[in-house]
Amino acid sequence: MDLQAASLDQLRRWETELSADYQAIKAKGLKLDLTRGKPSVDQVKLSDALDGILKGNYVSDDGTDTRNYGGIDGLPGAKALGAELMGIPAVNVLVGGNSSLTLMHQAMSIAHFHGLAGADSAWAREGKVKCLCPVPGYDRHFSVCEHLGIEMITVPMLSTGPDMDKVEALLKADQSIKAMWCVPRFSNPTGVVYSDDTVQRIAALGKIAAANFRVFWDNAYAVHSLDDSAPQLASIFDACAAAGTEDSVLQFSSTSKITFAGAGVAFMGASEANLKGFKASLGFITIGPDKVNQLRHIKFFAAAGSLKAQMKKHAELLKPRFATVLKHLQDAFGDNDLGRWESAQGGYFVSFDTRPGLAKTVVKLAADAGVKLTPAGATYPYGKDPNDSNIRIAPSVPAVSEVEEAMKVFVVCVKLASVRQALEQ
Amino acid sequence: MDLQAASLDQLRRWETELSADYQAIKAKGLKLDLTRGKPSVDQVKLSDALDGILKGNYVSDDGTDTRNYGGIDGLPGAKALGAELMGIPAVNVLVGGNSSLTLMHQAMSIAHFHGLAGADSAWAREGKVKCLCPVPGYDRHFSVCEHLGIEMITVPMLSTGPDMDKVEALLKADQSIKAMWCVPRFSNPTGVVYSDDTVQRIAALGKIAAANFRVFWDNAYAVHSLDDSAPQLASIFDACAAAGTEDSVLQFSSTSKITFAGAGVAFMGASEANLKGFKASLGFITIGPDKVNQLRHIKFFAAAGSLKAQMKKHAELLKPRFATVLKHLQDAFGDNDLGRWESAQGGYFVSFDTRPGLAKTVVKLAADAGVKLTPAGATYPYGKDPNDSNIRIAPSVPAVSEVEEAMKVFVVCVKLASVRQALEQ
Repeated sequence: MDLQAASLDQLRRWETELSADYQAIKAKGLKLDLTRGKPSVDQVKLSDALDGILKGNYVSDDGTDTRNYGGIDGLPGAKALGAELMGIPAVNVLVGGNSSLTLMHQAMSIAHFHGLAGADSAWAREGKVKCLCPVPGYDRHFSVCEHLGIEMITVPMLSTGPDMDKVEALLKADQSIKAMWCVPRFSNPTGVVYSDDTVQRIAALGKIAAANFRVFWDNAYAVHSLDDSAPQLASIFDACAAAGTEDSVLQFSSTSKITFAGAGVAFMGASEANLKGFKASLGFITIGPDKVNQLRHIKFFAAAGSLKAQMKKHAELLKPRFATVLKHLQDAFGDNDLGRWESAQGGYFVSFDTRPGLAKTVVKLAADAGVKLTPAGATYPYGKDPNDSNIRIAPSVPAVSEVEEAMKVFVVCVKLASVRQALEQ
Repeated sequence: MDLQAASLDQLRRWETELSADYQAIKAKGLKLDLTRGKPSVDQVKLSDALDGILKGNYVSDDGTDTRNYGGIDGLPGAKALGAELMGIPAVNVLVGGNSSLTLMHQAMSIAHFHGLAGADSAWAREGKVKCLCPVPGYDRHFSVCEHLGIEMITVPMLSTGPDMDKVEALLKADQSIKAMWCVPRFSNPTGVVYSDDTVQRIAALGKIAAANFRVFWDNAYAVHSLDDSAPQLASIFDACAAAGTEDSVLQFSSTSKITFAGAGVAFMGASEANLKGFKASLGFITIGPDKVNQLRHIKFFAAAGSLKAQMKKHAELLKPRFATVLKHLQDAFGDNDLGRWESAQGGYFVSFDTRPGLAKTVVKLAADAGVKLTPAGATYPYGKDPNDSNIRIAPSVPAVSEVEEAMKVFVVCVKLASVRQALEQ
C-alpha cells in the first residue's frame, strides 16, 4: 500500500474496500481491550503459593516479628530481593509497600517540598521547577509531575534511549531542571533498552545539573525480557560510583509484574545520603510497610534461581501475545510507510506510530469497532502528542486469539484512517 | 506521703530510704519497656489464621481478582468492615493500605497542597495555617503537622474531651485554623472518651470555621474497650448530618490493633465530596492498595459478631496489664498529690501527671534503672510539655510480671523525684 504513488482512483477503491471491512468488523460487536499494561490471570496465578506460604511462622530470619509495627527500612531478606532485582548492594535498598508508584510519588514529593538533602535542598524553595520527560513515556510518571506542579519538558526517545545531546544541552542551560524520568529497560512504551553509552551519560548528568537534580530511574521491567537474547542494561549504580554522582539517581523497582500486580513489594534503590533524606520524611508518613507480605516474598523466592525461573514462566505466557502483535504489524505495514514500531524484546508494550495526525482517529475507529486502545496522547505529558501519532499497544491481558482478533481490527483502522487522510490531502 | 506537711527531717529520711530503694533496683540490671503502644505477641497471634485463609481463591465476592491492579476505593467487603468499625455507611468508606497514619498524612497533605474541594481550597494558598492539638496527645499526629509546616495550637484535654469553649473561641477568632486532631475514644494518652456534648459541639465547628477546615477524627480505638461497661462514643457522622457539616470531619480507623499491627487494613470515612477530592489526588499516588490483604480480612471477619469476639480476646490479654498499672498507681499515689492519672477503660495507655517539672527527671531515673518510658514531652507538639509533668505509660507489650516489676520502679522514681524537688524548694 503505497499511498504516495497511488492514484486518486486507487485511493478511492481502497477506501471503499476498507470501509466495507470496517463495517463488517463493527457488525461483529467485539469487546476487546489492549489498554492495560498488566499481567493476565494466568500470570498472576504463577504466584498463588504466596498466601499460606508462611505456614504460621511470621518471624523472619533476623528475628523480626513481621506482624507488629516497625521496619521502615524493610526486612534484610526483602532488601536482598530488591538488591537482586536492581543489581545494587542491599544496603542501598529501601523496601516499600505494594506500589513503586507510591515510592516514586513520595520521593518526588519529598524532594520538592521537604528536600532529600535537608530543607535547603527542597525544589519548591526555588520557585517553578522542571522535569525532563523522554517521550513517548509512561503517563503515570507525567501525572506525578502534574500533581506536584512541576513543569515537564519533553525529550525525544531514540533507539538508544533519551536523546542525550538534548538532555545535556537543556541541563547545562537551565538549573531549574530538577528531575528526569527514565524507564531504562524495555521503556514504556517503546521497549527500548538504554544503550551503555546512554547509561554512562545519564550517570554523568550529576556533574552538570543542579546539586538537587535527581534522575528517577524506574526499572519496572528490569528482569522482564521475553527471551535470553534481549539486551542487558548497564549498571547505572556502578556508572554513578565511577563518576562520583551517587546522589543523582534514585532507582525504583517492584514485584508487581513478577508476583501479584496489586499485592507485590516495591523497592527504592539509592545512595545512603538519599535514603537517609528519604527516610527522614518517610518516618512522618508511616511506621512501616507490610512486613508480612515481604516475608511471603522472601519465602517465595528462597530457592536460588527462582526469580529467573518465575520470569521465564511469565515470558512463555507473554511471548505468543507479542509475537501476534508484531506479526500483524509486519504483514500489514512491513512494506509501506503507514506505521512504524519497535520490536519489543521485553516489557509490556508495543509502541506504534501512525502517520502524523492519525492516532486519535485510529483509537476512535477501533473503539467504535469494539477494540479499546490506550487514549491517544496518553504517552505524552498533559496527554498531548504534538504529532498525534503514538499509540501504545498492550497485549498482555487478552488471550492470544483475542490479540489476533484485535490486531486485525487495528490494522484495518490504521489503513482506513491513512487512506482517508490521503484522500483529503 | 504528704510532702506539703512533712518536716525537713521527714523529707530527708524519705530521700535516704528512697535512694536506697532506687540503688537496690538499679543493681538488679532490669531491662523493661513501657514505651510502645503496640500489641503483644499473644495479641498478634490471635490473627495467625490470616495467612492462608484464602485457600487459593483470590477472587472476592464481587468478582474482583485481588491479585491484579486497581481498586483505589477498596473491595465492597472491606468497605463494609470499615463501616462497621467507624459506624458509618459503607459508601462513605475508603480502604487504604496497612497504615491509617499514611491515610492521615495523605489527607492532610492533600488538603494542604492540593485542596480537598478543588485547588482553591488548598490551605497552602492562604499562607501560614494552623491546627488545633488537644494535649496531651499523640506524637505522630503532631509530627504530621510539623512535617507539613502547619503551626500547632494546643488545647487542654478535659475529662469530657478537648476544652470546647477554647476550641470554639479560637476558631471564631482565627480563620487560618484549618484542622484539629482528635482521638475521640480512649484518647491517646489520657484514655478519655469524648462526651456526647463534645461530639455535638465538634460536629458544629463546621458552622463557625473556615470552609476548608477539617477535623481529623482518628478513631484508632473505636472498638478497643477493656470491658463492656466502657463508655460509648456518640456518632460524629450522625451529628454532622444533623448539623449539615458533613464535609468538616474526616474519620480514620484501622485493624492495626485488631489483627496485625504492621499488616492490617486502614480506613478513611468521609462525606462523598471529601472522598471525591481525596481520590482525585490519591489517583496520582497509587493504582490501589493491597486488595489481597483486604480479602484476607473480609474472610477473617466473615462470621457475624467475630469482630466483637476478637476484641474480647484482646481485652482479656490487656486487662491484667492495665489493672497492674492502676493498682500500683492507686497504692502509691491514691492518698497523696504526687501524681494524677485517669483510669483507662480502653485504648493502649495510662496517662500520668507528675508534680510540675518532674516528668523528665522521672523518665531519666527510670531509664537509668532499666525501665524505658516514652520520652517526657512526647505527648505535646514539638516535644515540649510546658509543665514537664506528663508521662505516657504503655503496658500492652510486657508480661504482667514485667509490668509489675516496671511499675514498682516507676513508683520509686516518682516518689524520689518528688521528695528531692520538695527538698530543693
